[in-house]
Amino acid sequence: MHSSFLFCVTRYSLDYDSSENQLFLEEERRMSYLGFRCLEISRWVICGLIGFLTGLIACCIDIAVEKLAGVKYFVVKQNIEKFTEVGGLSISLILWAVLNSSLVMVGAITVAFIEPIAAGSGIPQIKCYLNGVKIPRVVRLKTLVVKVFGVICSVAGGLAVGKEGPMIHSGAVVAAGVSQGRSTSLKKDFKIFEYFRRDTEKRDFVSAGAAAGVSAAFGAPVGGVLFSLEEGASFWNQMLTWRIFFASMISTFTLNFFLSIYNNKPGDLSSPGLINFGRFESDSVAYNFYEIPLFIVMGAIGGLLGALFNKLNYWLTIFRIRYVHRPCLQVMEAMLVAAVTATVSFSMIYFSNDCQPLGPDQSEDYQLQLFCADGEYNSMATTFFNTPERSVRSLFHNPPGSYNPGTLGMFTVTYFFLACWTYGLAVSAGVFIPSLLIGAAWGRLFGILLPTVTIWADPGKYALIGAAAQLGGIVRMTLSLTVIMVEATGNVTYGLPIMLVLMTAKIVGDYFVEGLYDIHIKLQSVPFLHWEAPATSHWLTAREVMGAPVICFNRLEKVGTIVDILSNTSTNHNGFPVVVPVAPGKICGLILRSQLIVLLKHKVFVELARSRLTQRKLQLKDFRDAYPRFPPIQSIHVSQDERDCMMDLSEFMNPTPYTVPQETSLPRVFKLFRALGLRHLVVVDHDNRVVGLVTRKDLARYHLGKHGLEELQLAQT
Amino acid sequence: MHSSFLFCVTRYSLDYDSSENQLFLEEERRMSYLGFRCLEISRWVICGLIGFLTGLIACCIDIAVEKLAGVKYFVVKQNIEKFTEVGGLSISLILWAVLNSSLVMVGAITVAFIEPIAAGSGIPQIKCYLNGVKIPRVVRLKTLVVKVFGVICSVAGGLAVGKEGPMIHSGAVVAAGVSQGRSTSLKKDFKIFEYFRRDTEKRDFVSAGAAAGVSAAFGAPVGGVLFSLEEGASFWNQMLTWRIFFASMISTFTLNFFLSIYNNKPGDLSSPGLINFGRFESDSVAYNFYEIPLFIVMGAIGGLLGALFNKLNYWLTIFRIRYVHRPCLQVMEAMLVAAVTATVSFSMIYFSNDCQPLGPDQSEDYQLQLFCADGEYNSMATTFFNTPERSVRSLFHNPPGSYNPGTLGMFTVTYFFLACWTYGLAVSAGVFIPSLLIGAAWGRLFGILLPTVTIWADPGKYALIGAAAQLGGIVRMTLSLTVIMVEATGNVTYGLPIMLVLMTAKIVGDYFVEGLYDIHIKLQSVPFLHWEAPATSHWLTAREVMGAPVICFNRLEKVGTIVDILSNTSTNHNGFPVVVPVAPGKICGLILRSQLIVLLKHKVFVELARSRLTQRKLQLKDFRDAYPRFPPIQSIHVSQDERDCMMDLSEFMNPTPYTVPQETSLPRVFKLFRALGLRHLVVVDHDNRVVGLVTRKDLARYHLGKHGLEELQLAQT
Repeated sequence: MHSSFLFCVTRYSLDYDSSENQLFLEEERRMSYLGFRCLEISRWVICGLIGFLTGLIACCIDIAVEKLAGVKYFVVKQNIEKFTEVGGLSISLILWAVLNSSLVMVGAITVAFIEPIAAGSGIPQIKCYLNGVKIPRVVRLKTLVVKVFGVICSVAGGLAVGKEGPMIHSGAVVAAGVSQGRSTSLKKDFKIFEYFRRDTEKRDFVSAGAAAGVSAAFGAPVGGVLFSLEEGASFWNQMLTWRIFFASMISTFTLNFFLSIYNNKPGDLSSPGLINFGRFESDSVAYNFYEIPLFIVMGAIGGLLGALFNKLNYWLTIFRIRYVHRPCLQVMEAMLVAAVTATVSFSMIYFSNDCQPLGPDQSEDYQLQLFCADGEYNSMATTFFNTPERSVRSLFHNPPGSYNPGTLGMFTVTYFFLACWTYGLAVSAGVFIPSLLIGAAWGRLFGILLPTVTIWADPGKYALIGAAAQLGGIVRMTLSLTVIMVEATGNVTYGLPIMLVLMTAKIVGDYFVEGLYDIHIKLQSVPFLHWEAPATSHWLTAREVMGAPVICFNRLEKVGTIVDILSNTSTNHNGFPVVVPVAPGKICGLILRSQLIVLLKHKVFVELARSRLTQRKLQLKDFRDAYPRFPPIQSIHVSQDERDCMMDLSEFMNPTPYTVPQETSLPRVFKLFRALGLRHLVVVDHDNRVVGLVTRKDLARYHLGKHGLEELQLAQT
Repeated sequence: MHSSFLFCVTRYSLDYDSSENQLFLEEERRMSYLGFRCLEISRWVICGLIGFLTGLIACCIDIAVEKLAGVKYFVVKQNIEKFTEVGGLSISLILWAVLNSSLVMVGAITVAFIEPIAAGSGIPQIKCYLNGVKIPRVVRLKTLVVKVFGVICSVAGGLAVGKEGPMIHSGAVVAAGVSQGRSTSLKKDFKIFEYFRRDTEKRDFVSAGAAAGVSAAFGAPVGGVLFSLEEGASFWNQMLTWRIFFASMISTFTLNFFLSIYNNKPGDLSSPGLINFGRFESDSVAYNFYEIPLFIVMGAIGGLLGALFNKLNYWLTIFRIRYVHRPCLQVMEAMLVAAVTATVSFSMIYFSNDCQPLGPDQSEDYQLQLFCADGEYNSMATTFFNTPERSVRSLFHNPPGSYNPGTLGMFTVTYFFLACWTYGLAVSAGVFIPSLLIGAAWGRLFGILLPTVTIWADPGKYALIGAAAQLGGIVRMTLSLTVIMVEATGNVTYGLPIMLVLMTAKIVGDYFVEGLYDIHIKLQSVPFLHWEAPATSHWLTAREVMGAPVICFNRLEKVGTIVDILSNTSTNHNGFPVVVPVAPGKICGLILRSQLIVLLKHKVFVELARSRLTQRKLQLKDFRDAYPRFPPIQSIHVSQDERDCMMDLSEFMNPTPYTVPQETSLPRVFKLFRALGLRHLVVVDHDNRVVGLVTRKDLARYHLGKHGLEELQLAQT
């Protein structure tokens, strides 16, 4: 993930605002009331499609993993049963390790060699995208294919990973694809939805896709909407939110519907997500008022363990960036982890002698007898010899007494380190389920040990709280995670304890180190804007923050000048103020690099326009066709004669860019950026003369550390 | 509600932005990192308090209503049972009508004579407040007391009203009170939370209060958050949302906790809201794919009935504004409605001969035998002779066969007209529960009639869908209502059908007439800003929208001029651009009417400052102490000598107001207003000279009708 993500943060970042030029306004003015209605309906159709396709993908992943894992565990189980009697279990171990490694190898090769951006859960990348930082190739069809294939391999390969995180990325890619009505990878343009080929619109759909992904992953449509809002929204729009909710609903419904058909129970809509916590009935596992302090203690433990996890993973990531950046090394590391996971699991199962009587229902498919007496099974095997989703559910719902404390303790420790080692490998995989599993294990342990001290407590309830605490300690999500957990348990009563636990975990964890996603985002030096300006930054003004001097263009500018400036790698701005030539430096507009490139490519020069009067005028369509892969300036050839031509920018620039005076305080500038989704803000003096330009990077630098305001070093992009 | 609400839309509207002057910046600069931390913690504490108090109020209302209604129904029931045998039931009728009328009279007198703004559900007022339009007295302690007392009287008085809507208003008042750390009504200033005595901060807390109210009313903390966001948020802020969620959680938890103690089941947290739909188990009342079209048809019916309801209520409201505006008339109308409600209910019960066998559980307290055989009860009585909340729950959960179609049909029709007549009376009451009840009745009827056509269906499920459809058709809320309904049913599976039903109801209803709250808001001609500028308004620019010419002040201005301009009733602006005298008309700041009044009151004149050097400087505290009830200009005495003094506005004006050039399109201006919560936007020419001022009213005028863009007439405020 890192290498690719690190070194090519885009030059063409998202721009929500500055593209409102003359052409755009004319188009909008031409459009009738009916036209807007049609657009609105298309948006709904697209969101429905996004939800449907995301649900379908989730369904495919689920079935493929079940099938593959089923075959694998069946083979290994048969082998173990065979060799338990005759001895020579090491052969079973080797078989297991080889099966795991080969599955993971296939996945890792696809990811490392074909599309490295598909590695990991994709959540940091989607967070960046929704924040306004576009990372190249992150929403391409190829990425989606690799991601889906990769996640099937890595989950079936028995790694300590989940298939939930990648769903969010998958949903986002689906959204970006569907909403543009074309696929550049497949070179197919359906000529529909052309109006939406703009950053603003595309981003709105991507947030719907991410929400649909969350919704399919956890059966949590409201949680999905809140996730999108928490990560992406800057300006709350009711209709947009409503559409996002629609996509989420359709997504969970589609998954539910197809899974019910697959399970031969059509119409039984009881598995709305990839992970299903099972229903927590309030009457059977109600909590009491005096348990709340216990929950808060568990939240603190979750925060501590989460911080440890993140810190270890941080060091590991630094190590990987330095030494493991070649694809074949990455594949080998992934295979190694897979083999180690199998070995550790095997030896844990082998050396534990925690036999439990077989329950009345044989719903757990993979109960291993091993050295236990007849009618008993090895309880360590239920957690290791199983897909992680099933293990989580067992920990939540198995009756008291199903696990002994030693087993749980051992499991927690080993799985903690395995999961920590696994996150960041060149495989497509999420960290949600491993976190939940670790948390559920120590939570259940906590619940088992409690009655020995004071009171009897249902261990399943503590497993749930532990899972929430651990997940919260690692990812540090707040609102959306609470709602996701509440929706996944299907019980509103647990809302308050889960919320308190997540809050405590976040506060404790934040004291030591940031959340896992934020660590990975920070390692890429991405200009990520947080919610508010640092609290103590009121003394900073636009003058101190802005970049100056700014390269400006005249309204009528020489082609040569433009080409030279765009080619100059040291001035890699994406937006340039346009000034009037008569009054020096007085602003009259803002033009984007991408717009200039389209203009150069179509040779929209004043002289040529005069000579070739019949030539058709450049239209908005030309910009949309070029979107989003604008050619680099180097690919555009401008002859020596053409360099002396002039370009008239009036029609293509944004004639009314937002400006602020130099004395504006940083929090006000920040709020403008955040609320309006700006990329460039021109700073002017009292006579409207350009004196500077504030970009996202200028704002993202400032950071509130423990010693007051700090300035970060951001990548030179 | 109308009269008071109508004629005094405030002169001192909320202002989120323009108060960032020199004093404020200096204070912020002085504040340390730790200071900001303390503020943050205070915000959390306040939100916790808001949630706690709101939950407590909900609990009091619930218990008081239960007790009062219990006594009333007990008396009436005894009386009926007595007279059923001996004949002379008309005495029972009179007793019932008198009891109802007297309860309602007490409530109506309190509302009409003491605090008319407490009438109705308060949701339109809170919507306006969160939108940025402050309505006087809406968040005062007196309003809260009257509201709570009034709602107890009107619900116990048997009107077709609910106690849920007023909870939202109550939560908002609690929030406004707690966050300011003082009560002007009680003349008590606790000298805490002084930092929050600003519009921005107060409004954030009020949205938390509204969310806590929803949460307590429906046991729907997430729905509460979404309600606040849907109605109030313009700029999504993660920490704020998280705090709002905290308030909601605490509120539902408090209510739950105290109700569990009241019900002698401490720790049984199973009644999280005032209304509890009871649990819908997915396995018992699952829906099928082919039922979805039926649900959509029901949504359309709900939309139609909702539109009819709204249209009737609209005419009624117009009638009331014209003829029933004197308090004593209002009280008499309320009493009349109460008497009619009792009479109608009584005759419905009396003439219906729908006897049902008594169920095994006698949990329904108010089962009337009347003329039924022993061991049977009158089923009409369960719906009429009961609090509406219990009737809704019976309609959802009573087993098939509990009601006969004729009873339900009669009930729907009568209750529809009763509820429509009741909404808008001078009593404190909500429209949620009546809507749910009407919808549940016809929904159940729909469900009963269905099997005769095609398939068997659980009528309770259709009652739920009908309730959603009817409520959606009347109030037209979308996202938040879906989530509220899902949380209240405790079943995520119903999310998609409820969403589809609400969407259909909204689309169908909007075709005919607006939502009930919007109708009432529109009748007040409030400058209410919707989410986006009308779609076809791109051809309008700031030049056409703005008010011009603008009254500006010089940076150094004569006191006489200021007093004259502020006293001039024809120029009732709240914000004035400040210009530099040397370059005529060039903008250098913006100052508010309220700030000028404080300056005049403290006589901050240049000449006096020179003569009285020892006088203390005006501080931010002086502005905060005056907030929010700034004295009118008439109350400030300025002598003839003082009129010749000068005032230096530099330190008190906002030195960097947002400005736009004249060519900016209306959607861009709109977005600035909405995203930044502006009240005034200065329009400047290319030399930064003031040419106009855009206010909320200028934007709220434009409205997309069926024939394109329309201009509304707004009240002259």
